[in-house]
Amino acid sequence: MKRTLREVADHLGAVLIGEGQAEVTGVASIHSAKAGDLVFVEEKKNLDLALSSGATAVIAGDFSGNDIRLKPLLLTAQPRLAFARAAAWLLSEDSCSVTGIHPSAQVHRSANLHKSVVVEEQVVIRENVTIAENSWIGVGCVIGAGTKIGRDCRIYPRVIIYPGAVLGDRVIVHAGVVLGSDGFGYVRDSKASRYEKFPQIGRLEIEDDVEIGANSTVDRGALDVTRIRRGTKIDNLVHVGHNVDIGEDVVIAAQTGVSGSAVVENQVVIGGQVGIADHVRIEAGAILGAQSGIPSKKVIRGKGVVFWGTPARPIKEYLRDLATLARITKRSEDE
Amino acid sequence: MKRTLREVADHLGAVLIGEGQAEVTGVASIHSAKAGDLVFVEEKKNLDLALSSGATAVIAGDFSGNDIRLKPLLLTAQPRLAFARAAAWLLSEDSCSVTGIHPSAQVHRSANLHKSVVVEEQVVIRENVTIAENSWIGVGCVIGAGTKIGRDCRIYPRVIIYPGAVLGDRVIVHAGVVLGSDGFGYVRDSKASRYEKFPQIGRLEIEDDVEIGANSTVDRGALDVTRIRRGTKIDNLVHVGHNVDIGEDVVIAAQTGVSGSAVVENQVVIGGQVGIADHVRIEAGAILGAQSGIPSKKVIRGKGVVFWGTPARPIKEYLRDLATLARITKRSEDE
Amino acid sequence: MKRTLREVADHLGAVLIGEGQAEVTGVASIHSAKAGDLVFVEEKKNLDLALSSGATAVIAGDFSGNDIRLKPLLLTAQPRLAFARAAAWLLSEDSCSVTGIHPSAQVHRSANLHKSVVVEEQVVIRENVTIAENSWIGVGCVIGAGTKIGRDCRIYPRVIIYPGAVLGDRVIVHAGVVLGSDGFGYVRDSKASRYEKFPQIGRLEIEDDVEIGANSTVDRGALDVTRIRRGTKIDNLVHVGHNVDIGEDVVIAAQTGVSGSAVVENQVVIGGQVGIADHVRIEAGAILGAQSGIPSKKVIRGKGVVFWGTPARPIKEYLRDLATLARITKRSEDE
Repeated sequence: MKRTLREVADHLGAVLIGEGQAEVTGVASIHSAKAGDLVFVEEKKNLDLALSSGATAVIAGDFSGNDIRLKPLLLTAQPRLAFARAAAWLLSEDSCSVTGIHPSAQVHRSANLHKSVVVEEQVVIRENVTIAENSWIGVGCVIGAGTKIGRDCRIYPRVIIYPGAVLGDRVIVHAGVVLGSDGFGYVRDSKASRYEKFPQIGRLEIEDDVEIGANSTVDRGALDVTRIRRGTKIDNLVHVGHNVDIGEDVVIAAQTGVSGSAVVENQVVIGGQVGIADHVRIEAGAILGAQSGIPSKKVIRGKGVVFWGTPARPIKEYLRDLATLARITKRSEDE
Repeated sequence: MKRTLREVADHLGAVLIGEGQAEVTGVASIHSAKAGDLVFVEEKKNLDLALSSGATAVIAGDFSGNDIRLKPLLLTAQPRLAFARAAAWLLSEDSCSVTGIHPSAQVHRSANLHKSVVVEEQVVIRENVTIAENSWIGVGCVIGAGTKIGRDCRIYPRVIIYPGAVLGDRVIVHAGVVLGSDGFGYVRDSKASRYEKFPQIGRLEIEDDVEIGANSTVDRGALDVTRIRRGTKIDNLVHVGHNVDIGEDVVIAAQTGVSGSAVVENQVVIGGQVGIADHVRIEAGAILGAQSGIPSKKVIRGKGVVFWGTPARPIKEYLRDLATLARITKRSEDE
Repeated sequence: MKRTLREVADHLGAVLIGEGQAEVTGVASIHSAKAGDLVFVEEKKNLDLALSSGATAVIAGDFSGNDIRLKPLLLTAQPRLAFARAAAWLLSEDSCSVTGIHPSAQVHRSANLHKSVVVEEQVVIRENVTIAENSWIGVGCVIGAGTKIGRDCRIYPRVIIYPGAVLGDRVIVHAGVVLGSDGFGYVRDSKASRYEKFPQIGRLEIEDDVEIGANSTVDRGALDVTRIRRGTKIDNLVHVGHNVDIGEDVVIAAQTGVSGSAVVENQVVIGGQVGIADHVRIEAGAILGAQSGIPSKKVIRGKGVVFWGTPARPIKEYLRDLATLARITKRSEDE
């Protein structure tokens, strides 16, 4: 989409310094920018580099001053955020290859799809599914019976949704994700020493503005519900077990696992490869360092506190323990 | 499926306390139960809660006594197990959307499928595949040449089986699983410092009653066989390497990895994100705590012993080491 | 493919000891070998076992001497490598079930596929894709617009390639892999405490001779490029984040994660479940033990040095720390 700098400034609520009639069509890094691109700088020391790049204009912070520069500036308090919004706006037309329902898709006659929904090749949509306006279902997705998908969702190719899941609006699910699969629950017959399947018949609810990375898996509840709340972002290859409740605006990096019945409260930040055992509670705003491990039933408390290690403890303690160990080792070698 | 309490009691071998003619159709948690549901309690302290729930009847233990209560009771030595069995029985009709072989499936003429097999949309079945009675192959699975699948299996959508795998009866494979892929084996040409592929042409055998979670991967043997034995349960996103031999009734939680040629004996319990290196042997009945790591070629021995940490050691040692460290740190801070 | 031992010896540049007219068709382990198979031994102590196996001939090292034995020998300096090459040669005809473009595949008219390319059932190939000679695209792959795939590639079933990726020659991508998905990048609106998507619009470039294991995920660059260089081998369920640069002839075992903007230089060896945080640099030839963790922005340096633990340190230090701890624990128990 082509927009003048004046239009972009208005859209972002930014202050335009310089001429506003030049047109931009996309965004880029400073190193790769060419005419038609916007770039951004967050620190004054990078401004000159941005000004000498191939970009048409620079989104920058108040540190830039109001002088006319080599290129037009768009001044804003949060340049990175403005850049992200400019990108979303300029690239919003980036289009599907297919419109409407592809003839190779199989949509059950009881399904209720808004007429603006795009359904790509080979998608299978079962009984009583509903999908709201402007949602896009990529090639080969399987949408189980009774699933509800909100508006403006993007479901990338080969996503499998087991029956009965509920997705809010603007949910993004990347390729290969499995939603609503059976949780890992068995009962051991103490006489036969064999495992039998505990019923995995609950629901999965994913609220608005959640994004889930490629090949992640989210199990439905055993008897009740697994829930991922508004605005939470989940990276690739993450596992979310049955009955888990993940709060709002939580961030979970790749390959982390959240075991059954764990609770992760709002605005928690979780690094990669973290392991959260069953029935754990991570209270609001805590930060779990990469690879840390939270044993079964523990409560982690501390807004803004970073935890690390297995079992996870405040990072200060963890680093102090490591330092102690190094010191003793050294001392015993010196003896 | 609708059954009277009397029928359920007979099916479970439970003692019915109260009237037997009420009908049930499903199971639920105590919190969500409604008329027609069964619930269960394992501890006496929860019995009153169950009796005041919306459920039609309660599966409970001997602790309940023989008095007539507000609701009918089904008494049994293992209430959780009885509940699981009741669920399996009542919900067994939960039906496929499709019967027979969907016209969009591609089944090679040399494949031999029992007439009761269900093959959903877009499944591809290659040469000489055999599938026994009542198995269900979900949307878009690819079943490689020569694969044998037993009876009553459930292969969920988009499972990929490389050629030549053998699956027993009642095997459940969740969506997105890859079975029989090439193992990770290379030979380094010491002159060129480059890796060349070591042949990955062995087999994969999965025995009866195994369940494998969503998006897990199991490699075939390099030259011989990878084997998962009867009754083993594997969670989501687990990796099983080539030539691995996993025993009977083993439980493996999510995101664990079992490297090439490792042996896991019967009734081992493995937590989430555990790493088992190549040529390790985990002897029968050992328990590996979440995130523990077993270095190459180690043997872990101890029925019922919990191991933890990397390298894994008996949990008592691991916790003692952590306590020692904390004590020393504290002492050195006090000095 | 059937070849005489003389032909195999010529192909491998091996010295044939014994008769050359016998024919072989495959390879096997010593335990499972039968007539027509080649086996190999790397150590003299295993030679007798190989000679008494069912194999037709044995690939062995110089240690075997030049005497005529029970079976013909193929002598070479690197027997395992020769065995791998013999396997690749003998089994190279192992054929696709389908030739040409299957009628159920959807190939955009602007795509440019060499006439030797095999496209299996239900593949979807978008605008302006190019695929060079002899490449094979398995069932149900989705190849996004503008993707370039070199010659002799094997793309296994259900691989999803987001638009714009570039793959070199002889690249092998196993089932379920997702290439070019959006990286995990958000901007937090400091006023609303909500995350917004940072643009993920860069490229993914995978060079010649790379192999990627089942269900792994590789994100494209945010604004620039994610790159995996020549000859690198990646196991199952590995995550590679946006803007990562992985060098040549790197080996990465299963379930490892490489976070955004990390650099892994040539010939690094990475164990399973390793976590590499963002902006880390692993310098050429370093070796990272399984489950080790490299914190954000760290540099790991040391050709041939093994690092272990979280945070990773040279394995000597890690083991010394563990030994110190055990000693102190013991001493304090003795007191």
